[in-house]
Amino acid sequence: MGKVCFGADVGGTSVKLGLFDETGALLDKWEIPSRKEKGQTPVLDDVAASVLSKITEKGLNKDDVIGIGIDVPGPVLSDGTVIEAVNLYWDTVKAKNVMEELTGLKTEIANDANAAALGEMWLGGGKGYNSICMITLGTGVGGGIILDGQIVAGSNGAGGEIGHMLVNYDETEKCNCGKCGCLEQYCSATGIVRVAKRYMAANDTATKLRFIENLTAKDVLDAAKENDAVGVYVLNELGRYLAIACSHVAHVIDVQAFVVGGGVSKAGEVILDAIKKYYPGFCMKAVKNKEFKLATLGNDAGIYGCAKMVLGK
Amino acid sequence: MGKVCFGADVGGTSVKLGLFDETGALLDKWEIPSRKEKGQTPVLDDVAASVLSKITEKGLNKDDVIGIGIDVPGPVLSDGTVIEAVNLYWDTVKAKNVMEELTGLKTEIANDANAAALGEMWLGGGKGYNSICMITLGTGVGGGIILDGQIVAGSNGAGGEIGHMLVNYDETEKCNCGKCGCLEQYCSATGIVRVAKRYMAANDTATKLRFIENLTAKDVLDAAKENDAVGVYVLNELGRYLAIACSHVAHVIDVQAFVVGGGVSKAGEVILDAIKKYYPGFCMKAVKNKEFKLATLGNDAGIYGCAKMVLGK
Repeated sequence: MGKVCFGADVGGTSVKLGLFDETGALLDKWEIPSRKEKGQTPVLDDVAASVLSKITEKGLNKDDVIGIGIDVPGPVLSDGTVIEAVNLYWDTVKAKNVMEELTGLKTEIANDANAAALGEMWLGGGKGYNSICMITLGTGVGGGIILDGQIVAGSNGAGGEIGHMLVNYDETEKCNCGKCGCLEQYCSATGIVRVAKRYMAANDTATKLRFIENLTAKDVLDAAKENDAVGVYVLNELGRYLAIACSHVAHVIDVQAFVVGGGVSKAGEVILDAIKKYYPGFCMKAVKNKEFKLATLGNDAGIYGCAKMVLGK
Repeated sequence: MGKVCFGADVGGTSVKLGLFDETGALLDKWEIPSRKEKGQTPVLDDVAASVLSKITEKGLNKDDVIGIGIDVPGPVLSDGTVIEAVNLYWDTVKAKNVMEELTGLKTEIANDANAAALGEMWLGGGKGYNSICMITLGTGVGGGIILDGQIVAGSNGAGGEIGHMLVNYDETEKCNCGKCGCLEQYCSATGIVRVAKRYMAANDTATKLRFIENLTAKDVLDAAKENDAVGVYVLNELGRYLAIACSHVAHVIDVQAFVVGGGVSKAGEVILDAIKKYYPGFCMKAVKNKEFKLATLGNDAGIYGCAKMVLGK
């Protein structure tokens, strides 16, 4: 089987695990529940046990295993210390050391959005680039920055937190983070619905969206594709705010490409088109030409990125 | 004398050169003119000759020399290719290769603002940190990003171009870059004067600044220190826009510290105070606490950064 490695994407409910060869072929994939206990890290014990039993099951020995990459939902420093992971009931945990002691295998740890970014750079929408910004449009807006093939963890583990970049000075409604005008307020699934509802309350524009109970982001973006006036308005706002955020990223670190993922990105190319319509207008010449790509690995991006962390550049 | 290295800060008019030991002690410093000729790079010949003659003068031999770091005013890729340097009449020049052939010495090349950032991180205002954003407030606004002790050059050599980050969506006057609302329009020396004049034209606030011919940024900031109403207004605008830009940088790469340099920064701590007054209000919790420092190396930041490039981390 040659050399292999493991990726473990630890979420608040379950852990996705993957066994990879060195080229990134996914040889096996499975899930275990995320066990939580205040002040302890039982999920790490379970991941360690699961990896070790998979090694036995596959007839591997430890020398065949390059290591384990793990991601968690919380800020992680570049030395593998998790500062906190609220959904796992973790305070600061030296997770890299813990796992290396539990398994005897080299371990790398990262934030989940950052790991997903690395996965997408390696074998997903960002394939062929080594410096990207990944933007995940889900319930919130997450992000990850990869420079020269490496995750930018940040000094407080807050690298790539572009969802809370201020993009609208005139906003009066509060973001979950406590301030007003964050990217997330316009581009998350929740934000898209919020923008649509607010627009409909303030304007009597004819739109099918008024007749939909429990309006979702998908409803809004589907309507945009059918040229519904409110749908189009919201999609344009989405594109404009994402373009502003991307322009900020570009003027700071001049990445090669932006990769857009998360549930909202299932709307497809219309999202990229909406960003590309506004992006150049916010940029100086040197950063006007960037690639915009859709993520392709879906929920597996995390395990791919975890594997890549241990495989190295 | 032990091992040494050279730094050469190539400007449009002159080249500053420095001879350093491995600890960063500046052993000698001199200048030569920047010779320019369309389609050629005579200044590199002159820098090479100057370095080689300094080696002879000091009784060194080439084995004592770790290398030469050079910075130029233009975008530079991480492989040492200069894309263009308008003020030197350069198109694309593989400057690293050219210098290595001319001198037989290891050479590293960077953009001048990026080299200055590295210098300030090493032995200036950013000493003690390894990830900083340097902001240079001069005729324009330049910037440089250092992550984990390394310059972020960017895929088009545009890393750290924060002067052209869009910070005001309502601006109607154009920046030199062609768009409206760039940081540079409020925080450069020119921008400070522009903001003051615009405010005075629109308001009849009593201010000593009305009576100054050929108003300069120094006049405006001096007035702010004396509590002059217009001076205070402009300083607040300066602080607010810099705080916005810093917040964007922080949400992207979560640096440890911001270092503010350039002629405008000679106004001193009032600049940092103005930024710190607004900065936390634009940030999510994880990036609220950052250090803000004044640059300390002045015009020598470039040669220090150049030296550090060849010395390595």
